[in-house]
Order: sequence, then structure tokens, then C-alpha cells
Amino acid sequence: MTGVLRPGHVQIRVFDLEESVRFYRDVLGLVETGRDDKGRVYFKCWDERDHNSYIIRQAEEAGIDFFGFKVLNVETLDKLEADLNEYGIETSRMPAGDMLATGERVRFTLPTGHIMELYAEKSAVGNGLTNANPGPWNAASEHGIAPVRLDHMLLYGPNVAANKKIFEEVLGFFLVERVLAEDGEFEAALWLSCSHKVHDIAFVEHPEPGKLHHCSFLMESWEKVLRAGDIMSMNEVSVDIGPTRHGITRGCTIYAWDPSGNRFETFMGGYQPYPDYETITWDWDHFPQGLDYPQRKLHESFLTIVT
Amino acid sequence: MTGVLRPGHVQIRVFDLEESVRFYRDVLGLVETGRDDKGRVYFKCWDERDHNSYIIRQAEEAGIDFFGFKVLNVETLDKLEADLNEYGIETSRMPAGDMLATGERVRFTLPTGHIMELYAEKSAVGNGLTNANPGPWNAASEHGIAPVRLDHMLLYGPNVAANKKIFEEVLGFFLVERVLAEDGEFEAALWLSCSHKVHDIAFVEHPEPGKLHHCSFLMESWEKVLRAGDIMSMNEVSVDIGPTRHGITRGCTIYAWDPSGNRFETFMGGYQPYPDYETITWDWDHFPQGLDYPQRKLHESFLTIVT
Amino acid sequence: MTGVLRPGHVQIRVFDLEESVRFYRDVLGLVETGRDDKGRVYFKCWDERDHNSYIIRQAEEAGIDFFGFKVLNVETLDKLEADLNEYGIETSRMPAGDMLATGERVRFTLPTGHIMELYAEKSAVGNGLTNANPGPWNAASEHGIAPVRLDHMLLYGPNVAANKKIFEEVLGFFLVERVLAEDGEFEAALWLSCSHKVHDIAFVEHPEPGKLHHCSFLMESWEKVLRAGDIMSMNEVSVDIGPTRHGITRGCTIYAWDPSGNRFETFMGGYQPYPDYETITWDWDHFPQGLDYPQRKLHESFLTIVT
Amino acid sequence: MTGVLRPGHVQIRVFDLEESVRFYRDVLGLVETGRDDKGRVYFKCWDERDHNSYIIRQAEEAGIDFFGFKVLNVETLDKLEADLNEYGIETSRMPAGDMLATGERVRFTLPTGHIMELYAEKSAVGNGLTNANPGPWNAASEHGIAPVRLDHMLLYGPNVAANKKIFEEVLGFFLVERVLAEDGEFEAALWLSCSHKVHDIAFVEHPEPGKLHHCSFLMESWEKVLRAGDIMSMNEVSVDIGPTRHGITRGCTIYAWDPSGNRFETFMGGYQPYPDYETITWDWDHFPQGLDYPQRKLHESFLTIVT
Repeated sequence: MTGVLRPGHVQIRVFDLEESVRFYRDVLGLVETGRDDKGRVYFKCWDERDHNSYIIRQAEEAGIDFFGFKVLNVETLDKLEADLNEYGIETSRMPAGDMLATGERVRFTLPTGHIMELYAEKSAVGNGLTNANPGPWNAASEHGIAPVRLDHMLLYGPNVAANKKIFEEVLGFFLVERVLAEDGEFEAALWLSCSHKVHDIAFVEHPEPGKLHHCSFLMESWEKVLRAGDIMSMNEVSVDIGPTRHGITRGCTIYAWDPSGNRFETFMGGYQPYPDYETITWDWDHFPQGLDYPQRKLHESFLTIVT
Repeated sequence: MTGVLRPGHVQIRVFDLEESVRFYRDVLGLVETGRDDKGRVYFKCWDERDHNSYIIRQAEEAGIDFFGFKVLNVETLDKLEADLNEYGIETSRMPAGDMLATGERVRFTLPTGHIMELYAEKSAVGNGLTNANPGPWNAASEHGIAPVRLDHMLLYGPNVAANKKIFEEVLGFFLVERVLAEDGEFEAALWLSCSHKVHDIAFVEHPEPGKLHHCSFLMESWEKVLRAGDIMSMNEVSVDIGPTRHGITRGCTIYAWDPSGNRFETFMGGYQPYPDYETITWDWDHFPQGLDYPQRKLHESFLTIVT
Repeated sequence: MTGVLRPGHVQIRVFDLEESVRFYRDVLGLVETGRDDKGRVYFKCWDERDHNSYIIRQAEEAGIDFFGFKVLNVETLDKLEADLNEYGIETSRMPAGDMLATGERVRFTLPTGHIMELYAEKSAVGNGLTNANPGPWNAASEHGIAPVRLDHMLLYGPNVAANKKIFEEVLGFFLVERVLAEDGEFEAALWLSCSHKVHDIAFVEHPEPGKLHHCSFLMESWEKVLRAGDIMSMNEVSVDIGPTRHGITRGCTIYAWDPSGNRFETFMGGYQPYPDYETITWDWDHFPQGLDYPQRKLHESFLTIVT
Repeated sequence: MTGVLRPGHVQIRVFDLEESVRFYRDVLGLVETGRDDKGRVYFKCWDERDHNSYIIRQAEEAGIDFFGFKVLNVETLDKLEADLNEYGIETSRMPAGDMLATGERVRFTLPTGHIMELYAEKSAVGNGLTNANPGPWNAASEHGIAPVRLDHMLLYGPNVAANKKIFEEVLGFFLVERVLAEDGEFEAALWLSCSHKVHDIAFVEHPEPGKLHHCSFLMESWEKVLRAGDIMSMNEVSVDIGPTRHGITRGCTIYAWDPSGNRFETFMGGYQPYPDYETITWDWDHFPQGLDYPQRKLHESFLTIVT
């Protein structure tokens, strides 16, 4: 209720820009919306209305540069920055226009080592349907996998407990689900929401800071997840796990890797929690069922490979 | 962002209480959670966690008594009551315990003649799954139609413009979609959200105040909507329209009547808007497509029958 | 078990050839496979392997010219012709090559006035997937509505009882379902299968001979039926009924009209009967439920409009 | 076209009869239809109309005793027995009544070591829906996983080439798909149909005779396959692979083990071939994609564990 709306953008490092453009545009089916003078390529999901949500840049190492949450307006942005500072978190401002079609961004580093941003302004370019008498979908909805939106990120880093405190106490998120470590007390993984999505962001305790487990894209149905898997195979995309259902969040999912080894998820479903809901807790013994509900299996690659 | 969470309860008048209990419990598949000394029967959807969301009482006339939105906490409740009063709306307090498992309710009458409530407290009884290592569903999920939640109401009454102002300016809702009358200006129908549901409440301009068009229940998939239609037929429930897709909201739906003639909806889908989204507008010429997307047809019964 | 395989082709009359080509190719999403010197345009469904299944020609009046069932081989063709003749039905031979990519056809007229054909040879052109290591679908599967196959026809004409006798006694079909007229005895509608499809052909008693109620195309899922309805609306196709489920056959369906007023169906589901199954009978009182299972309604247009 | 209809029954050995009854009745959701004086328990799928299709008996070793195909009538049975004998296959007759509700069975041993039967008579007990004005499903359709029918078996044994010859030349099956061994010539796996199901039976070359890879049960949708996986996990059933799609047959599937280690499949989809279709061939390099289309992976357990 603090005015943090949703994960609005994420910047990802890739090895080969043009190969990645082809992958994200034609296989994942994002819409390319622009390129900037820093060499970045901007994408959005077809049903998103803001100019961009997924940005890639060429680099030697894969992984995540930063991610940003959109907030309601500039007053909210200023208020949240003040709250962060008061809490003891240093912030800086990225100028408007540094990212295409995007206003000023308040940037700070999380205890897990991830660079997070808040911003209030990104130009609305629409979802390709008109705002007058729109049809329910269009050709872009069927170009490649074609998720409807960037849904959330799962990030690996140290001290997720400190992250949790910031998201709960300053940013107004609530803890939807969590996994306890073998000791039955330590929170090894956290799913947090600032809305009634089952997760807007998630963190897993991990020694190395600033790592990306996956960016997640929402599909409209279990049948569309199957179609996503078909398209992955047709394009020889490496799949990590799925199709399957998570016990955690109930989401139905496939995880795969982009050409640079960044994992991404195409998923649907899960329930819609509210801030007055009690947190769901998974203990270590049931974590296999939480991860892969039908198979009740811990997948080594899924748990250990990050970028 | 004012702390209004969701439509939390609605009270509906029925002709024959026991026949209605059988209908709502065994055909619609709600979970009966209690009865009070006023003769009311309380239900919830299987995946809702609060004690009740749908309450029926026996009466000579069908229709809606009142509906309530849950807010974040008692501070929010007090703040919103003050805001309503300052706006010029009189409120009264229904005492805690007047409804089973429910705290104090702030009650007021909308310009359209509907009695609306806000409340902060309703006992959590859970969804029948544990909060530790829950499965994704249980037997209750397949008893009758078994919607996951009370989703929204569509109400008919005069002066929806005045309602809109209150919902937008005091309660923090935003206008997701609207239908313009033949003159191209008058807003004949409004879909409003306090979350990123495509509608938490909707209003249609109508001379008679306080009328109910339908209460809506969320299904998990288009296949579950088909199953809902099957169960309606097996139980000789009168169907109004559907299965079909609305152009408005993109929702996929069936409308039917309870034994007293109160219309209800079982639907799935639609998109998830945010407060920064531009409103979608349907003009009168495209309203048939907005109402029944494949058939592009205005259904007389759907537009005119209310309780 | 006589070697009659499936409805293999149907020839339909349309008013405007090029408008109809655009409709069948881009809206219904058939694959155009050729045109002949008689001005006919040949189509197939994407997953059919023979050269053509749906043929249109320009004419002053809409309707059906003829339909053909493919049989196992030329021996079967000869045998069935002999059987028909012995039964008392006159046959003629249409020469190989009269239709593109199609061998000799044995032609005869049914008591209901429809011209039926049997043939053994039509060139296999494949479904656009290779026969070595094929993917499950391809771009053609998503071009327009894109049904997987021509599934069956429903035809109106007098004396369906005589048709039934021929299909059962000579052609080896079995009666899957039937509707009895109000007298509880007269078979007003018949669904017949030569396979374990729930219908390969169907007949309804009607005074005028040789009429077409609809040609039916198979979709892969209920979600694809919804998508079909979306595409119909996007292209302003006139829909008759649906989406809905039939009680009869359990099929889930939409009926609509081509630009010339020929009705077609896009459907999925139904069960798979075998010749040892007892026939399902619908009496007149339950026919509304048989026709539109959720709505339990007789649709006037559906019952009376034919071409 | 020889009158062989479908796989009608299979007899499976289990370790603990009552535990297995609970599993097959309450988890897989078959309908128990009887027990005989040999201690066998008979089941059918809810939508099957004959008395039984899946029979279990207690034994020290898991695996398959025999399977039987239903044929059109006793004349067909006699004819096929004569054809088998003429081909050089010895047959014996199991008397009517040896299996509950089942007529005389013609029994013979396949080159792969499996005991196969043909039979013409099994009492119709119906699918729990009436033959007059039936609904599309009933409570049994949602008890446990609740497949609609026993669909096919995949069997392991030596000399599948000899099996193929019998099925093609005597029993009238056709080869739908096949996998070639690394040499590009040897047919390592065969999918055969006597109908237009994508498989009525399948064989894999294997040194040990008479082994069972799996019995397969048909589900109605991809969503029902997901539900099957949920129910498996709720009941701690060991899952082998899935949910996933096969490239081979396009079927969408989960494989799991019964309490005795007999693998079974719950699947949906695939296409519907006809005898005039060219066989689909998978070469060894593409077999991973044929087995698990999205993951393009050979699963060791799936390929090697049989009972």
C-alpha cells in the first residue's frame, strides 16, 4: 500500500547481442521497442503498456545489471526514497532519459548485492490493441512464446533476511511463501508481493552476491505453457525443468536458458494472495514437493546454476 | 493505494433459505461456514481464507442487502471513514459481531442506492489447505462449481457518475473500462478496480436504485467455466448467457440465476490492469462486441433483468 | 469394418470466389492447395495429409454439391460399388483427375437427395511437418482458426431412415446417437460413424432434399474453440450458436456462417464410440439439452437455416 | 479393417492386492467392477462401457500376465484365429467365464514373449450415464485421476520385427511411428494402430521377453494431465517422467509407478492417423526429442526399468 506497483524493468547481460535479440524477439516473443546509444536493446511483453520491461546489453559475463519497480507517481518516488534513506539505505538518482522512455530512477543496493531501482515514469506505448473497443489479443500474442508480462525475478545472494526487512518495512511488500532451511528456522528462500500477485520478487540465500536465478514471464494458460515448451524445443532452447507445477505458489512452469545461460521462466497460475494472508511455510523435508509438485524432486541444476 | 483490499462480503436475499443453501453449497459449491441468530447463512469460496464472503437471508424479494470491502487494518478503516465524511458522505458503524466472525463495519449509502461497507477484520479460517507445505487444491475444489473467490459485483442504479467520483477520489479505485451511451459522452457502465484485478466492482446506469445485476465468482480456467456450465445443466440452473468471452475485460464467462432469480457469474481470465493504465472505452456501436465477443450480440435479458 | 475411412472431401458453393478464398484461407485458416480449370479452389486443413478436403466453387446459390468418403483401396472401392448396386443403388464413376490429385470416384445419390462419393486415391502432400522427426505443429497451425481436419457434415433432407439403412447395411457405419421426434418413435436426427469418431456424418429429417446444415472442423482443445470465436469476431463472421457444449456427442463447439451463408462448425471433444456401443437416444423433451447443454435451449436459427 | 477393435483388457501382477485396489480405485480412479474366485480384482475406466479392462492379481513378481483385444464379433474371432493358425501361430481357447463377464478368448504367444488374446464378448455395463439423454460426465469422472479409457500398452521383448509382421499381416494393424536404432535401419520401437488412435499397442526391442513398460490411460485434456500429476503427488505416487509432451505421437503425458512398480501412463492428445498415412520415423539422434519434446532428453529410468 506504499505505491510500489510492479517489477517494471530488468537489465540483463548477454554474450552476443544480435543472437540474443533474435532469441528474445522471435523465440521468447518479446516486442522490440528501441535501442539506445549505449548499445542496449529494449523489449516489452506484448500485453504490457509501458515502453519497455526487459533490456539486454552485450557483456563478457551473463547476469543481471539491475531491476526496477514502477511506483504510482513522483510523490511516491520521493517519499520512498526518503523512507529508504531514513532506514539507512543510500540512494542515488539515475537521470531521466538514461533509459529510453523512462523518467528519473532512484537506485540503491540491496544487502544481497543486487542493484534495485524505483521509478515513476515510463512512456505508455500501449499493447498494440487500441484503447477504444479493443480485441482481446492480436498477432503479437502469437509471435513466439509471447508471454503477457514480465512477472517477477528470483535472485540469489547473501543475507536475504536483510532484504526481507527492507521490502516489508520500507517498501510495503508482504511475505507470501518461504522455505526454511534444514534447521527449521533459517529462511532460505522468500517470495514477496507488493500487490496480489503471488510473487513480485523472490530471494534465495546464496554466498555470492548479486546473482540471477531467473526472470519470469507470465503465460495465460497451462496450454500456453505447453506451447512455450514446444517452441523451446523447435528452437533448441535448453530447458532446465518443466513443464511442471510448483507446490510453492502453485505456479505451473517451464524453466529454460537464454543463449547466454540466463535462466528464464514461462509460467501461469498460482493463487492471488493479499497482505492479510498468513505466510505459507515450506519445511526442508517438503521442499522437493514445493519445487516440483508431481515429481517431488530437487533438481540439482535448478538449485545451483545462477548467472 | 488507500488500503482498500477487495470485495470481502455481500449479503443476498433469497426466497427459500434451505433450497438456496442446497444451491449455493452443492451446485455453486461454496463452503458453508456458519449461521447466525438472524437466520443468515454464511458461505465462502473454497480458496478464500476469511470466514465468509457470501451471505444469504430469506426475504420476500430477491436482491442485494449490502456489500463490504475489506481494508488493510483499523487505522485504514478510520482514515477512510473520515475521508468519506469529509467528502460529505454520512457513515454509520455496524458493531463487531453483527456478522459472524466480522469486526466493526463502516456503512454508507452510494448515490446509486446501494449500501456499501468497509471493514478491517474478519477471522481467517483458512482455505482447507494447511499453511505448512500445502497441496495446490483439495476435495472442496471439486465440490460443485467451486469458484476460487467472490470476485466482484455489478450493480445497477441511478447516477453512476457520482459513484465513480467517490470510488476514484475517496476510496482510491481507478477506472479500468467504461461503456459510453449512444451520445458518445455519457458513461453508461463503469468497471473499477482497487487492485490489479480487472474489476473489483462495476456499475451500470439504471433508473431504479440499489439493484443487483450479478455477483461474480472466479474460476481457474476456461475448462473450469465449461465444467461450471455442465454442472448448471445437470442441476437445471437457468443460464442467461455463455459460455462466451466478453470484449470488455476479456473475461470468459457464464451468467446464470440462483433459485430466487439473483444472477451470478462464473468467469475466468481478463487482464491485470494497474492504476497507471489508460481507461479502455467502448462506444455504443461496439457494445455488442464488448458484451459477447464471439456473437457480437446484445442479449435483452442480460441487459434488463436485475434483482 | 468395410474399409470406409473418413469424410475426405466436400464441395461447397459460394457467391464470391475470391472473398471466399480469403475467408477460408485467412479466417478459417485452411491451406489452399490448388485451383482447377473448372474454377474450383482446393483447401485442406493443416494436419490433413491428403491434397484436399474442402473445395469451393462460385455459384448463384450456396450449399453443397457433393461429399466423398475415402476408402482403404481400389479393391474396397470396387467391392462397395458392387454392394451398393446389389442393394439397388445406381452408381456412376467420376474419372480420375476430375478433381485435382484425386482418383476415380464412385458417385451415387442418397435418399435425402445428397450426392455422395467414395474414392480410394488422393495424393498425399503431407501436413507440412516432415515424416522424419516431426515437430508437433508449425506456423500453419496458427494461421487463422486452423482446424486440424474436416471432421464430418450434418445434412438435411427427406427420408433419413433410408439413408441410415444404406450407411448401416452397405457402408458399415453404426448409429452413435439419435434424436426421436415428439412421437417418441420417429428418428428425426442421426449421428453415424464409420470409425470411432463420434460422428463421421449426420442427417436430420427435412422436407427439402440435398440441404447442408454444416461442415464441421476439428479443433484441438476447448481453448482453441475460444480462440476460434475470437477470430470470428475479429473478422466480423456471423456466429450462430456457441461457444457451448452439445449434450449430443458431448462436443464443444461454435457454429458460424461463411460469407455465402454456409454454416460451419469449429468443435472439439466428444467421446470415442465403437461399433459394439449401444446407441444413445435423445427424446424430444431433452433435445434442448442435447443441442445446447448449458443453456438447454432450442435455437431457432440453428434448427431451421440450411443452404 | 479386420475387425480388431481395441485393447480391451490387460491383467497385471501386483504385490499386495488390497493396497493395489486402493491405489487403482482411489488414486488412479478406476471403477471396481468385480472380483473372481481366482482372487482377481476387475476394474474399468469410468467412460468405458464393457465390464472390465484392467485386472489385477496378487503375485510375487510384478508385470503383465496377458492382454486382450476385443474384436467385432464371434465370426471375426473365428476368422482371426484361423488366420493366425494359417500364419503359423498356435492358439488356444480360454473358456467363456474364465474372466468375469467375458466370452471365449483366443490366446497365443507373441515372438516378444507376451501372451495376447482376442475375444468378441464382454458384457456391457455402461459408463454410469444412461443411454437416454446422458449428461457429459458424472461423479466417477472426478474420483481420483479418472482416465476415460485404457488406451494402449507398451511392451518390451525380443524380436519386435516378428511382432510387427503379425500385427500388420494377420491382425490388420498399421505402423504409425517407429524409432530406428543407431544404425539407421533396425526398428527399435514400434507404435501400431488398429483404428485411428495414434497407438493401440507399442513394442520396444529388449532382450528379456514378456516385459511391461507401461499401460496407458487416456485423459481428456492437458489440464486433466496436470490434475493427474497433482493427485500423484498428494498420494506420494512415484513419478518417472512428465508432465511433458512426446515428440513421438505428440501425446502429452505423465508416467508413474503403481505400488508394485508397474509403470502406467496418464496422457492426452496426439493426432489421429489412418491406415493410408505414411509412417513417421524417428532416427536415433532425434530420439531424445521424440521421447521428451521440450527437454530433448533421454531419461535412463524410462528407457530401462520394466516389470
